[in-house]
Amino acid sequence: MLHDPNKVYVFDTTLRDGEQVPGCQLATHEKIEIAKALELLGVDVIEAGFPVSSPGDFNSVIELSKAVNDPIICALTRANKNDIDVAAQALKYAKRPRIHTGIGSSDFHIKHKFNSTREEILARGVEAVKYAKKYVEDVEFYAEDAGRADIEFLARMVEAVIAAGATVVNIPDTNGYCLPDQYGSKIRFLRENVKNIDQAIISVHCHNDLGLATANSIAGLQNGARQVECTINGIGERAGNTSMEEVVMILQTHKTLGLHTGIDATRFFEISHTVRSQMNMPVQPNKAIVGANAFSHSSGIHQDGFLKNRENYEIIRPEDVGFPSAAIVLTARSGRHALKHHLERLGHQVDKEQLATIYTAFLDLADAKKDINDDDLNQLIVNNLAKAGA
Amino acid sequence: MLHDPNKVYVFDTTLRDGEQVPGCQLATHEKIEIAKALELLGVDVIEAGFPVSSPGDFNSVIELSKAVNDPIICALTRANKNDIDVAAQALKYAKRPRIHTGIGSSDFHIKHKFNSTREEILARGVEAVKYAKKYVEDVEFYAEDAGRADIEFLARMVEAVIAAGATVVNIPDTNGYCLPDQYGSKIRFLRENVKNIDQAIISVHCHNDLGLATANSIAGLQNGARQVECTINGIGERAGNTSMEEVVMILQTHKTLGLHTGIDATRFFEISHTVRSQMNMPVQPNKAIVGANAFSHSSGIHQDGFLKNRENYEIIRPEDVGFPSAAIVLTARSGRHALKHHLERLGHQVDKEQLATIYTAFLDLADAKKDINDDDLNQLIVNNLAKAGA
Repeated sequence: MLHDPNKVYVFDTTLRDGEQVPGCQLATHEKIEIAKALELLGVDVIEAGFPVSSPGDFNSVIELSKAVNDPIICALTRANKNDIDVAAQALKYAKRPRIHTGIGSSDFHIKHKFNSTREEILARGVEAVKYAKKYVEDVEFYAEDAGRADIEFLARMVEAVIAAGATVVNIPDTNGYCLPDQYGSKIRFLRENVKNIDQAIISVHCHNDLGLATANSIAGLQNGARQVECTINGIGERAGNTSMEEVVMILQTHKTLGLHTGIDATRFFEISHTVRSQMNMPVQPNKAIVGANAFSHSSGIHQDGFLKNRENYEIIRPEDVGFPSAAIVLTARSGRHALKHHLERLGHQVDKEQLATIYTAFLDLADAKKDINDDDLNQLIVNNLAKAGA
Repeated sequence: MLHDPNKVYVFDTTLRDGEQVPGCQLATHEKIEIAKALELLGVDVIEAGFPVSSPGDFNSVIELSKAVNDPIICALTRANKNDIDVAAQALKYAKRPRIHTGIGSSDFHIKHKFNSTREEILARGVEAVKYAKKYVEDVEFYAEDAGRADIEFLARMVEAVIAAGATVVNIPDTNGYCLPDQYGSKIRFLRENVKNIDQAIISVHCHNDLGLATANSIAGLQNGARQVECTINGIGERAGNTSMEEVVMILQTHKTLGLHTGIDATRFFEISHTVRSQMNMPVQPNKAIVGANAFSHSSGIHQDGFLKNRENYEIIRPEDVGFPSAAIVLTARSGRHALKHHLERLGHQVDKEQLATIYTAFLDLADAKKDINDDDLNQLIVNNLAKAGA
C-alpha cells in the first residue's frame, strides 16, 4: 500500500461511541460544531453515527457528510444488508465515505449473543464486507470482543474479510479486559500470521474498564497497528474509550517510537472544553493532558524543582496542548484580596498570617519588577512559605 | 525473607501525595476518618504525611498513628537529618512505623535540582537510610525520577541503600513519563542485577501524566515489584497517581498473573465517595471502576447482549466493588412520571412518544410480574425501542 508506514491514523468516535452515553446525546447542529473542530484538529476519520439506529443518527451522518471536507466520514452497521443499505444512503454526500461493519469474534459472543457457530459468523462477516463494497471502496470490519477471541479463529476471520475487500480491520477489546502485553501480542500475531495483512490497516479500539485503554492502544501501535479509535476526553460507555489526547501526546513525547499523527495538539484544550460542555460530561481535575490540574505543580519540593528547571517535573508544556499561557496578573497597586485570589487560582491556599507574609514580599517584588505573573507568584510561595511535599 | 511471594502490598498515599493537591487539604479529623476507612479496606501501608512540611502534617501523623492499628504508618522525609528527626518524632505512637526517605536519581534531577554529582547523591541517600534506621526498623527509600534515571546508576543506588538497611525500594516514575514496557524493563533489570534485591521489596510509584500510571504499575508487578503506591480515585498532583481500585481489580480479574492483595474490593464504592466528597475532588462519570457510569450499559446492542448474558459485556460485577445493587423500583400502580424518572436514572432518555410506547409495555409486564426492577426496565427498553449502538 502507499501509506506512510509510520503514520498513525486517528479515528474519532466521540460522535458515535461517545455520543451513545446516557446524557451525552447531541442535536445535529451540535454534532456539526464538534465535527468541524475535529476537522481542524486533524483527525483522519470521523465516525458520524449508526444510521439504522434512529432517524436522528441517520440525519447526523447526512449533515456531517456535508459539513466536513477532509476527514473520512464513517457510518457504523451490524453485519446485515439493511443496516448497510441505510448506512450507504446516509453517506451519499460524504466526500470520502467509509462503512464500518462487523460481528462478534469471541466464542462467548458467538454462542451467547448470536447463538451461532464460528463458521456461520465468519461467513456473515465476509458477506457483509462484500455487500458494503458494492456501495463504497473503503470498508472497515470490526471483530467484536476480539480481546477475548481465540487468536487462530480471529486470524482466519481477519484474513477472510481482507480477502473480501476490507481496507481496515478493527480489533476491539470490547470489554476493556486485556492487559497491554496480551493486547500487543494479539496484534503482533495478526501481523505475523495473516497472509494478506499488508492489504489492510490494523485498527485498535480499546475500552477503559480496567483503566488500560490508552496503554493497550499504544501496545497495539508498537506491534503494528496503524489506526487508533478514540474519543475526546476518553468519553464513552461505562469507563469510556481510549483518550485521543493521551495517545497523541504519548506518540509526540516518545519520539523513539517513530510514529506520528496528523493532529494539531495545540487544539486539545479547546476541543476538550467544547466536548465536555456540549455533551454534559465533566472531566476530573486529575485527567491526564486536559484536566484542570494536569499542569499544576502544587507541592513545595516540586515547585522549587520546577522553577529551577521546568523539565524537572514537566514532560509536556501546557502550551503544547493549548492551555492558556500565564499572563501578567498583578502590580504593586494590587491589594491583598487580589493577591489571595490569584494565589488560590494557582492552587495555593493561604491563611491570614501566610497572606501577610507573602503580601510583604509581593510588594517588594512588585516595586522592583512592576509586572507580576504566575511564575512570580509561584516563586513567592516557594521563597516565603515552608510548606513542602515530594 | 518470609513474605508470601505472590502478595502485593498496597501502599496508600491518598493522605500524602493526594492531599497535597490544591483544594484537597483536610483537617486532621477528616484524615482520621479516611485512614480508618483505609484500614477496613485492608491497605498494608498508609502514608500519613510529610511531618517536616507543616505543623498540620506533623500532627496528622501523630493522630493517625494513634487511630489505626493494623496498617504500617509511613512518614515522608527528604534525605536529611532534620526531616528524619521530625518524622521519627511524629511516628512515636505508630504501632508499625515506617520512614520513607529518598533523593533524586536521574542525572536531570541530580544536576538541575541538586546541583550535585552521582557519587555525592548516592552517599546522601545511604546516609539518610542509616540515620533513619536508628529510629525504625522499617525504612523505605525512594529514588526520585527513577523513570528517567540511568539504569546502571539506579541499580548501584538501590544496592547501596539496601545494604544500608532499606526494607523497601521505591522506583518512582515521578513525571509519569515511562511506557509500560520501559518501566517493566527497569524493574526487571533491578531484580536481575541488584545482588541483594531479595532483602527488600521493590515498590512502584507511578504518575498519570500520559494516562499510563495503572499500566506502568502492573508492568512493574509483572516484573517482580511487590508493593504498589497508589491513591483512591487516582487523585494526586497534576494528572494524579495510580488508582488503587484499578490495580486491585486488574489483579483480581486477571488471576493468571498469580498475584493477590489483602484488599476488600467491595468497599471501593464507599471509600471512593468518602474521598471525593471530603477532598472536594470530583470523579468523572467515565472513570474506571468507581465512575458513575462504570457499569452502565447504554446502547441497544450492548444491552441486548448484556441481558442475554451479562458476561458478554461485563468483566467485573458492580457488587464486586460495592456498587448498590438494583432494587425493585416500580409496580403497576406507578405512573408515567415515575417510569420516566427511573428510565432516566438508568440512562435512558425517552421522548413523549417513546414513553407512551414503553408505558403500555410496562403496564403489561407489571400486571404479569408485579414488582419491576432495573433489569426489567432495561429489558423493556431493548424490547420496545429501536435505538441501538455497537
